[in-house]
Amino acid sequence: MDLRSYLKNRQLLINKALGRYLPPAREYPPSVHQAMRYSVLGEGKRIRPILALAACEAVGGSVKKALPAACALELIHAYSLVHDDLPAMDDDDVRRGRPSCHKKYGEALGVLTGDALLTYSFELLASGGNGDSAVRLKVIREIAKAIGTQGMIGGQVVDIESGSGRSRGAVMEYINSRKTGALISASVRIGALMGGATPKQYQAISSYGDKVGLVFQLVDDQLDRDGAVRLYGVRAVRERAQSLTRSAVNSLRMFGSKGRSLEALAFFILTRNS
Amino acid sequence: MDLRSYLKNRQLLINKALGRYLPPAREYPPSVHQAMRYSVLGEGKRIRPILALAACEAVGGSVKKALPAACALELIHAYSLVHDDLPAMDDDDVRRGRPSCHKKYGEALGVLTGDALLTYSFELLASGGNGDSAVRLKVIREIAKAIGTQGMIGGQVVDIESGSGRSRGAVMEYINSRKTGALISASVRIGALMGGATPKQYQAISSYGDKVGLVFQLVDDQLDRDGAVRLYGVRAVRERAQSLTRSAVNSLRMFGSKGRSLEALAFFILTRNS
Repeated sequence: MDLRSYLKNRQLLINKALGRYLPPAREYPPSVHQAMRYSVLGEGKRIRPILALAACEAVGGSVKKALPAACALELIHAYSLVHDDLPAMDDDDVRRGRPSCHKKYGEALGVLTGDALLTYSFELLASGGNGDSAVRLKVIREIAKAIGTQGMIGGQVVDIESGSGRSRGAVMEYINSRKTGALISASVRIGALMGGATPKQYQAISSYGDKVGLVFQLVDDQLDRDGAVRLYGVRAVRERAQSLTRSAVNSLRMFGSKGRSLEALAFFILTRNS
Repeated sequence: MDLRSYLKNRQLLINKALGRYLPPAREYPPSVHQAMRYSVLGEGKRIRPILALAACEAVGGSVKKALPAACALELIHAYSLVHDDLPAMDDDDVRRGRPSCHKKYGEALGVLTGDALLTYSFELLASGGNGDSAVRLKVIREIAKAIGTQGMIGGQVVDIESGSGRSRGAVMEYINSRKTGALISASVRIGALMGGATPKQYQAISSYGDKVGLVFQLVDDQLDRDGAVRLYGVRAVRERAQSLTRSAVNSLRMFGSKGRSLEALAFFILTRNS
């Protein structure tokens, strides 16, 4: 498969859907709707929704059915960036080459825009798609767990409390697996659920997702020369990421040719340079 | 009915359930779990969950079934207070006679604790109760709408942007109906849904909820001598609140004696002095 054009097509599909799902910029009160669109649309690899759609297809589901849930994952990712950028958190003025949300709209709206994106993602999860209700409830539970205090928020809490770059191995593993890995691996599982995965398929996809989630964070660390790289060195981290990727791809065997996209995505996540 | 002991019993029931549902304080990472419990437990009238349980009973449902959803409403209320108290928002150092969450745990944890409470409320809504899945999805949609940019968040955005006490009538109405009213009236509707309301029952309960939600905000304005009171004067606001309460109580006629609690709660909301 041609990964570059595959990614581009999926990004287009997802960006169009996000533009449709998000409230129009002029809807009252306009500031928060503008800030939501500003924080979500524009640049972005859309790796979480792309993984979800690929997992949905791997188990034999249709992309259309998983699209609202996939977009909800991107809204959640955007919410986490908006809140992480706040002065009280990482205090970042720039995000993807533009002023961060609170820099452009003010700090109060930064807090509220993150809140609104998180809230709206759950509305979308409860509204969109044609999956049966029990599956959609399970998807909501999975996502809420992945981004709660045992997942993304927990990772962020420990990261903030551990200060910069001085964390020991166990703490580092905790931050890595939770802060980014949890939502990445949940994205894969949620796609599989929306695609109507059997328990066996779900198990295989989960195994793939856990490993790819960890690789994603290890590569982030390599790119930032931070986290695991400070602790174990570039080479050891690269080898671990490679070995996890091979193992992730092995989990896909049962899907045959339907697992090709997930396989290509695993290598993309390993070798990306931004 | 003896309203005072009714309220006290319900508060006990709800506080016990909240203590059970919230993650234990020692669970890793402990700071955020402590901050969640600090922000939810302790003082609090629990008016939103009490309304939800009363609405559930009015339509013939069982309190037990609605308890997780009722508690989720209180978690959402707590999240909104934690974020509203942040320096970038209302900048309040004291909440219910104690240091506000960010004063006690720091600003980063203030943001993250609010996020965690909001996230966990959706986990609870998707997990708890024995209602059928379609009803629970509807409950999630209702709540997400009530607290989104067309509800609570929208009200907060307009409130912040309108400055202090100089808002005109239409803007004031918008803030009043959204900032507090939306979650109050959603609480009533959600209780009815969890209780298995028929469409006719649901309509009557909704009508009651919309009016009581508005009264709640009008009484807040009376107590703070702010908002509608600045614009229309104490007397006009009191008369409007009384007339809305009568009308809310009239909506309960079809429930007969089962509507007694909701009736008493409407008068409690009208006459409360804190």
